[in-house]
Amino acid sequence: MTSEGLGSTTRRSSSVPELVERARKGDPRAVARLISLVEDASPLLREVMSALIKHTGDAYVIGLTGSPGVGKSTTTSALVRAYRRRGRRVGVLAVDPSSPFSGGALLGDRVRMQEHATDPEVFIRSMASRGHLGGLAWATPQALRVLDAAGCDVILVETVGVGQSEVEIASLADTTVVLLAPGMGDSIQAAKAGILEIGDVYAVNKADRDGADATARELNQMLALGERRGPGDWRPPIVKTVASRSEGIDELVEALEKHRAWLEERGQLAARRHRRVCDEIETIAVTALRERIGDLHGGQRLDELAARVLAGELDPYAAADELVEGITG
Amino acid sequence: MTSEGLGSTTRRSSSVPELVERARKGDPRAVARLISLVEDASPLLREVMSALIKHTGDAYVIGLTGSPGVGKSTTTSALVRAYRRRGRRVGVLAVDPSSPFSGGALLGDRVRMQEHATDPEVFIRSMASRGHLGGLAWATPQALRVLDAAGCDVILVETVGVGQSEVEIASLADTTVVLLAPGMGDSIQAAKAGILEIGDVYAVNKADRDGADATARELNQMLALGERRGPGDWRPPIVKTVASRSEGIDELVEALEKHRAWLEERGQLAARRHRRVCDEIETIAVTALRERIGDLHGGQRLDELAARVLAGELDPYAAADELVEGITG
Repeated sequence: MTSEGLGSTTRRSSSVPELVERARKGDPRAVARLISLVEDASPLLREVMSALIKHTGDAYVIGLTGSPGVGKSTTTSALVRAYRRRGRRVGVLAVDPSSPFSGGALLGDRVRMQEHATDPEVFIRSMASRGHLGGLAWATPQALRVLDAAGCDVILVETVGVGQSEVEIASLADTTVVLLAPGMGDSIQAAKAGILEIGDVYAVNKADRDGADATARELNQMLALGERRGPGDWRPPIVKTVASRSEGIDELVEALEKHRAWLEERGQLAARRHRRVCDEIETIAVTALRERIGDLHGGQRLDELAARVLAGELDPYAAADELVEGITG
Repeated sequence: MTSEGLGSTTRRSSSVPELVERARKGDPRAVARLISLVEDASPLLREVMSALIKHTGDAYVIGLTGSPGVGKSTTTSALVRAYRRRGRRVGVLAVDPSSPFSGGALLGDRVRMQEHATDPEVFIRSMASRGHLGGLAWATPQALRVLDAAGCDVILVETVGVGQSEVEIASLADTTVVLLAPGMGDSIQAAKAGILEIGDVYAVNKADRDGADATARELNQMLALGERRGPGDWRPPIVKTVASRSEGIDELVEALEKHRAWLEERGQLAARRHRRVCDEIETIAVTALRERIGDLHGGQRLDELAARVLAGELDPYAAADELVEGITG
């Protein structure tokens, strides 16, 4: 039987425990299949998570964000290379919150990732919100867990910095890297959007271009302005990189490792992860509660209540009380 | 007793039914006080809404959004003038989703609104998320209800177009106006952020400046590109305005009235409002459910479950089940 034949047969018939076992051994098809189950919000997902959970907790999650064009994929690819040289198994999750499609939307990125395609110690996956309830905020932690159980030492989560999404993704990472590039005229604008609060490490990429020093200087000033740090607090370093030539990437890895060590020393890593899991559990619970609300009276309850509010018969709080009572008994 | 004395005395001692009665008669202090109760998430809020609800449903809500600098406040002020000339009572809600402060953050806007400050038929209020649960998505509909019950025929909701907030605010309006200005270089960027999906009417303000025609043309092309309309569907008009000189404002009002008539003819106005109230009720219910989750076991339940997930003993779905059972069981 060819490996191809085995692949397509097992795709259909593998049980969840078998898939998890294969994923743990580093079978890329099993990993891909499990992440697809996450993305599709498969009914099997509970069983998957139940089987995976005891194999998780070892991966270090690094988030990368920045505006389009700053070189996120190139930087991610260079980081994969750097971590591979250090003997680590690496996962990459490219998250596109603006696209309902996975795969296609990140084709360009995939091309850039090509060099790692045949490395059995690298798992690359793009993910998009397929419009299901809870979206990526809900799916991303589950996908991270799959890569974690598959033995990844480091997982790079790459996301385009658009509005709220970058903040959400940052909250999923142990360490967040914010990328900037010179001459994009967006550093101040980006700062407004809150990147100064989410970066643990900053990289000014394309540092061989005009204006790189000015961008780094401006960023440095803005970080200093926003500083409300006590002694011993983390001061986000600014690293200059030319990711396309792997320049500055070792320095970037060093900055990441320093931040990790800093987090661990202070118990901050455990605290961040605890907060993250609290959010995750709460999101799943609230999603389930929303579904119960939606199911009340064959899906008609909310509509009936809204009609009464619009008619001035019932205020929205009283209407909400009825919903809450409806599901809590 | 001076009117001032009465004001400060009643501020403290007025019962909710008295406040609502005064607001209905157009007493601006009572309106302001009720909106403050909304903003502060006062325990009295349920009583307020219960007393208000039967007096609501007549106001037409117009949302205005756009990047900083396009002239939102000037346009709002010009629209207030136009609607006042038509004999309408007008409410203005200036919502700043990026600021935790109300009032101060919109001082500049208030100055621009000065001309309406002494008009008893105009109510102007700025609002900001004071960091409470649910934020502005939760508070804005309640504030609109206060202005509605106070007899406003038209309510203008002005918000700065930042990320998700403009979409949220647009969902609260019957008709949404998206403002652009020439030479801001942001029209395409704004388009990416989704304004092409939320505008019912577009205004290119500062139309006396260079590039106004180009901006209108570019916008027109983008709207045409995104078109998936059938016959009879609404085609968002583009109106050129110079709000500071009230030029084009009558045309803007005409476009707004046309959209309103179109919505009413097709039953779309009722449908929009129904969806809006469904969202509102659900938001209140989910907020209440989140609070119950937070209260479980003296606030410790979620922490305990998260610790077990991190230890690999429990998967997040099983943890969420325990939360859901805790509040529904």
